[in-house]
Amino acid sequence: MDRPEIIMAPGPTPVPPEVYLAQGSPLVYHRGPGYGDLLREVTEDLKRLYKTKNDVVIFASSGTGGLESAVANLFSPGDTVVVPVAGFFGERFAKIARAYRLDVRTIDYEWGRAVDPADVEKTLADTGARGVLVQQSETSTGVIHPVEDIARVAKQAGALIAVDCVSSLGAVPFETDAWGVDAAISGSQKALSATPGLAFVAISPAAWEANETAQNPRFYFDWSLYKTAYALSSPENPFTPAISLMQGLRAALRLYFQDGPDRAQRRHELLSRAVKNGVRALGLDLFGDHPELAWAVTAVRAPEGIDGDELVARCRRDHGVILAPGQGPLKGKVFRIGHLGYYDRLDIMRGLVALELTLESMGYPLKRGAAVAAAEDVFSQG
Amino acid sequence: MDRPEIIMAPGPTPVPPEVYLAQGSPLVYHRGPGYGDLLREVTEDLKRLYKTKNDVVIFASSGTGGLESAVANLFSPGDTVVVPVAGFFGERFAKIARAYRLDVRTIDYEWGRAVDPADVEKTLADTGARGVLVQQSETSTGVIHPVEDIARVAKQAGALIAVDCVSSLGAVPFETDAWGVDAAISGSQKALSATPGLAFVAISPAAWEANETAQNPRFYFDWSLYKTAYALSSPENPFTPAISLMQGLRAALRLYFQDGPDRAQRRHELLSRAVKNGVRALGLDLFGDHPELAWAVTAVRAPEGIDGDELVARCRRDHGVILAPGQGPLKGKVFRIGHLGYYDRLDIMRGLVALELTLESMGYPLKRGAAVAAAEDVFSQG
Repeated sequence: MDRPEIIMAPGPTPVPPEVYLAQGSPLVYHRGPGYGDLLREVTEDLKRLYKTKNDVVIFASSGTGGLESAVANLFSPGDTVVVPVAGFFGERFAKIARAYRLDVRTIDYEWGRAVDPADVEKTLADTGARGVLVQQSETSTGVIHPVEDIARVAKQAGALIAVDCVSSLGAVPFETDAWGVDAAISGSQKALSATPGLAFVAISPAAWEANETAQNPRFYFDWSLYKTAYALSSPENPFTPAISLMQGLRAALRLYFQDGPDRAQRRHELLSRAVKNGVRALGLDLFGDHPELAWAVTAVRAPEGIDGDELVARCRRDHGVILAPGQGPLKGKVFRIGHLGYYDRLDIMRGLVALELTLESMGYPLKRGAAVAAAEDVFSQG
Repeated sequence: MDRPEIIMAPGPTPVPPEVYLAQGSPLVYHRGPGYGDLLREVTEDLKRLYKTKNDVVIFASSGTGGLESAVANLFSPGDTVVVPVAGFFGERFAKIARAYRLDVRTIDYEWGRAVDPADVEKTLADTGARGVLVQQSETSTGVIHPVEDIARVAKQAGALIAVDCVSSLGAVPFETDAWGVDAAISGSQKALSATPGLAFVAISPAAWEANETAQNPRFYFDWSLYKTAYALSSPENPFTPAISLMQGLRAALRLYFQDGPDRAQRRHELLSRAVKNGVRALGLDLFGDHPELAWAVTAVRAPEGIDGDELVARCRRDHGVILAPGQGPLKGKVFRIGHLGYYDRLDIMRGLVALELTLESMGYPLKRGAAVAAAEDVFSQG
């Protein structure tokens, strides 16, 4: 039977039928009141999600385009920025900053470590850097970096802070305004469970001030063009938007908020706990610092004698369940289970069953049903 | 009755049900064989459309992102480029080049003129410029610039040529390899009638050579990252692609080519002729040089005493048919009828009827049915 594969990777995430229907529905023309209403609703909902009064701009691009927009709009060639690197996406932010000829001072951690705000504080003091570029959820390791504390030391040093919360916004507590984040970048295909192709950025007043003098070249990702077009009596995008994806995102945001602002986030915490207990009940070890905070994605050490890449390949081939492999130095050594987005309890169970069956087929000794039982324990406690 | 509006603007264009269904269908995961097959099919079909053996890269962005990619990947700050400006999109290409601190030498035409290759030749000789940035279809005026001749003078001067064929590729004859175009940029929501959010670029060997030394900063739009990812055994995008839009684009390309490579283009010529004869039969004047070449969009002078913007607004309000207004200096003076994309004969008739009714309601004297009769004459001749 040819069934769609079940994605349990950390993005794209499972897309609800409401989103598919919305993006398969007739286009709203992008000039005029229909699209203006759509853009306003989506923008206002994103502000709620970001917990911000700041401007939010939306690009037709992947999340990486959003990251690049922060580098291009905030800085000038030669500006010093501090970039903690503890995984693949830390490396990506550093690469983008180098591409724009910033003076990039990385703080290099073993992959799987959480960033220590004291390291950022010290490096800011040593370098007088103008900015900090960091992830909240380092998707490659699942680790949540302490953005609130990092933002505080950045502010104290008079530096701007840009946060890649692509795989965390909506899944993990994030407070744009309360924490003082200057540019918070996220995307459509993660906790919101819309489809990929939209990136958004929440931009603080300090970021707008920096934008005025930043010399890095930009056009498509120029925040100010989006702000100007949004300020029209019927809000617009400066360039033809990905209208269908916007229609899908509107449907996704309505679903996300249907039970109130915090319910979806609590669901992420619960599902994360169920996955982690299930995995531990199979005798597997979680990977990375503070896994209890990793509500978006769970990184698991491949057990002795089992190759993580092979496990991921078999699970997809035999069960149609897509987990994510380890990246970079973690290749083969870890695998990752995404549980952000439009999942509920039984979706998690299904994934744990596929994991059990796959491990068993690879000769790993386990007690059948152990992962599911442990997850049921979590759910029964609520 | 609440019906979807009928878009007769030059993009987005009418989206066939097959495209909506494809982009409302379950996501193909973007790593592995399913997406690899999709990306390969779309890329090969685009090469057919471009008439090229060159590499084609696809971005999740609007067409403007594709234009920016040409500026970022081909040039370095201070490089001189010649930019003929005869409308809104000529201005846009110049703005992008200035944003990247190129030395931009515009050739300024009255809006509505076609670029004269002799002017480009002279400016190249005077400046020793490294590149030419030009549109094929200047969407704001409907005018087709003579890309074949412009490319020849560029080659003779040793300059690169980047062509914005966003609103012309697939609607108007375009020969990437035969004409020697180094970067040809187009988008999903025009002649192909997929939805907006994808841009593509055909990149010549000379463009790749320039890419190696070009110093302009780039990351998300860095062509080489896309080339590397496409070369994997199962082709990928370097960043999470707009998967749903790619599924829609595949469906659109299959429809486009279903009657053979040139049939769709001949359809555009026929529909364009029908629109133009219909408009003339109402006593209206076409706007711009060589309207017989403007197979993508027809620009029409608003008649004496009729404001073009009001005409467009009434036609939308009263008939749900979206025409496009004049831009910049043409505001109020012209209106535009898009006939590129998934239109057939009766769709054109429907648009002409809406135009007749709207003009009549504004007090313009006309003979009812005149536009439709003139279009029928065109169709009867084939």
